[in-house]
Amino acid sequence: MFFITKDESEIFYEISYSNDNALLLTNENENYLFTDGRYFEEAKAAAKNCEVILSSSLFKSVAGVARKNKIEKICFDPHKTPHADFLELKKLSGSSLFAKKGALSKKRAVKRDDELQKIKKAVKLGAHGFEAFAKKISFEKSSQNEYSLAYSAKECLTNKGELQVSFEPITAIDENAANPHARATAKLLQEGSLLLFDGGVKFERYCSDRTRTAFFKDGFSFEKKQGFKDQKLQHIYDTVLKAQEAAISAAKPGMKAKELDKIARDVIEAAGYGEYFVHSLGHGVGLDIHEYPYINKKSEEILTENMVFTIEPGIYIPGHYGVRIEDMVVLTSNGAEVL
Amino acid sequence: MFFITKDESEIFYEISYSNDNALLLTNENENYLFTDGRYFEEAKAAAKNCEVILSSSLFKSVAGVARKNKIEKICFDPHKTPHADFLELKKLSGSSLFAKKGALSKKRAVKRDDELQKIKKAVKLGAHGFEAFAKKISFEKSSQNEYSLAYSAKECLTNKGELQVSFEPITAIDENAANPHARATAKLLQEGSLLLFDGGVKFERYCSDRTRTAFFKDGFSFEKKQGFKDQKLQHIYDTVLKAQEAAISAAKPGMKAKELDKIARDVIEAAGYGEYFVHSLGHGVGLDIHEYPYINKKSEEILTENMVFTIEPGIYIPGHYGVRIEDMVVLTSNGAEVL
Repeated sequence: MFFITKDESEIFYEISYSNDNALLLTNENENYLFTDGRYFEEAKAAAKNCEVILSSSLFKSVAGVARKNKIEKICFDPHKTPHADFLELKKLSGSSLFAKKGALSKKRAVKRDDELQKIKKAVKLGAHGFEAFAKKISFEKSSQNEYSLAYSAKECLTNKGELQVSFEPITAIDENAANPHARATAKLLQEGSLLLFDGGVKFERYCSDRTRTAFFKDGFSFEKKQGFKDQKLQHIYDTVLKAQEAAISAAKPGMKAKELDKIARDVIEAAGYGEYFVHSLGHGVGLDIHEYPYINKKSEEILTENMVFTIEPGIYIPGHYGVRIEDMVVLTSNGAEVL
Repeated sequence: MFFITKDESEIFYEISYSNDNALLLTNENENYLFTDGRYFEEAKAAAKNCEVILSSSLFKSVAGVARKNKIEKICFDPHKTPHADFLELKKLSGSSLFAKKGALSKKRAVKRDDELQKIKKAVKLGAHGFEAFAKKISFEKSSQNEYSLAYSAKECLTNKGELQVSFEPITAIDENAANPHARATAKLLQEGSLLLFDGGVKFERYCSDRTRTAFFKDGFSFEKKQGFKDQKLQHIYDTVLKAQEAAISAAKPGMKAKELDKIARDVIEAAGYGEYFVHSLGHGVGLDIHEYPYINKKSEEILTENMVFTIEPGIYIPGHYGVRIEDMVVLTSNGAEVL
């Protein structure tokens, strides 16, 4: 069975090269990469175990190769394939088309050793960024707002541009943190502010992802132990931490993803905040910042050894504050190892 | 006719609000926005002329509203709609579905006055960024590589995080500039280097886009007049500039996009570099960095007043260097006005 994809992470995984206008036809042994004149030279130099085909009309070229090689069946991921591409492929190619969710991306949930090493390095670099950011904002604490905090966060995470962020970091203060995907505003950081910081970096294209929620008083520390003045907030913080610890302790191979989600959710529901945990418990991390496995209420996916994912419960009280604590783990035969 | 979209720019254009998990059903008068619990509160507060519907299953909710309001026809853009979304909508909704390329985005090619003002502001801010970057790299010229240049470029473009870039800037030196979409490397900037710098910022979500190619000698200037030591390179630079000026002078309402592309391409072909101009002449700019109109060899689109687009010819000699000069223009009854 051949697979077809335009997704950069999927392409990179197969042939160690990708660009933003390429199409890969692969049976995971034979690879054909179709790309245009802007990228042809670099693709030929960098793509591994792959025939690179210069093309100004990607699907036409695919159809030609499919006919020549008598490829009867082509599988595609309908979630990553625009309907127009499906129609074009159907029109041009004589092959039968099969839609399969996660066709090429699901297998990436389980990491190889070399991938784990890169992810560990990314997590380590990300953690350095958190430390550097804490120092920087403690030192330069006057008149910082969410914009300048986001900028400082990127400066620290990327070591002034040496690395790339794995996504735009979130630096949300107080009630803005009640929005799990907050965008930066001009809101000022003040003594007593809560800061939710969600950020990560890439190392050789592999992502890291971490969130800490911290109390600003004479500076910041992103340690998990935090002391908030507001007692209700402290209770919420402790509940989120307890939910995270419960999930980390309970995670083991063979478990369904939804079972792991439930363990954290039960802790939060028991504390009376169930309706304020408005997202899923976690997601896989690798070449993409969000990938398989997805750890949510409905997922029947079986967690297995060498899967890498986040555990990130949160409680968000609209108009007041939000708390999220997130770490990445790798699943081993002994359970979840925090990265 | 109702339209359906998940595209953030399309949604923002209709209701002045968007997020990364929302679906808009609109007939350009009546608007229904479907979104999840993370975004429901902010959507209700910010979306204009729009009913916001809390939904954990966007297409199911759409189907419900479509039945209730007897919506018979729903139009979607097959290039922006994953095949899986098409299948789900088809399954759940009783409405007939129509695929139309650019269904909601094509009209954005022609800008309203308030949009033009925002774009002009973005272009001005972007131009300031170019000047600040030139000063900064002239001053800090020792041991800069493409990574640190890209970082400095972002620092200058965003004014240390106050603005957002409209795309990751390109800072490509010498032979790396031969790749039109070059990614930064550790390649060092040296006396006599060529630097291709492509960057832009956003102002109230509207993008700017500009490219200059410059010669580094005791610092940088991003003026269009450049003096390269290499005579062949100087000839190439002058050819690109001539091609850009020819296209800017010739642009007028009523012309086909492909006719404008041909004017620049003819100049480059006449100089013997036709095969090295490997991309299209330009693209529309607005809420998206690439949008209608597309100015390429094949486009039959008619250029009209108040369209905003780039004019950016280039010549790329693999292994040696690349030259691109890009400006944004707005088309008026008198022709192209450079922004």
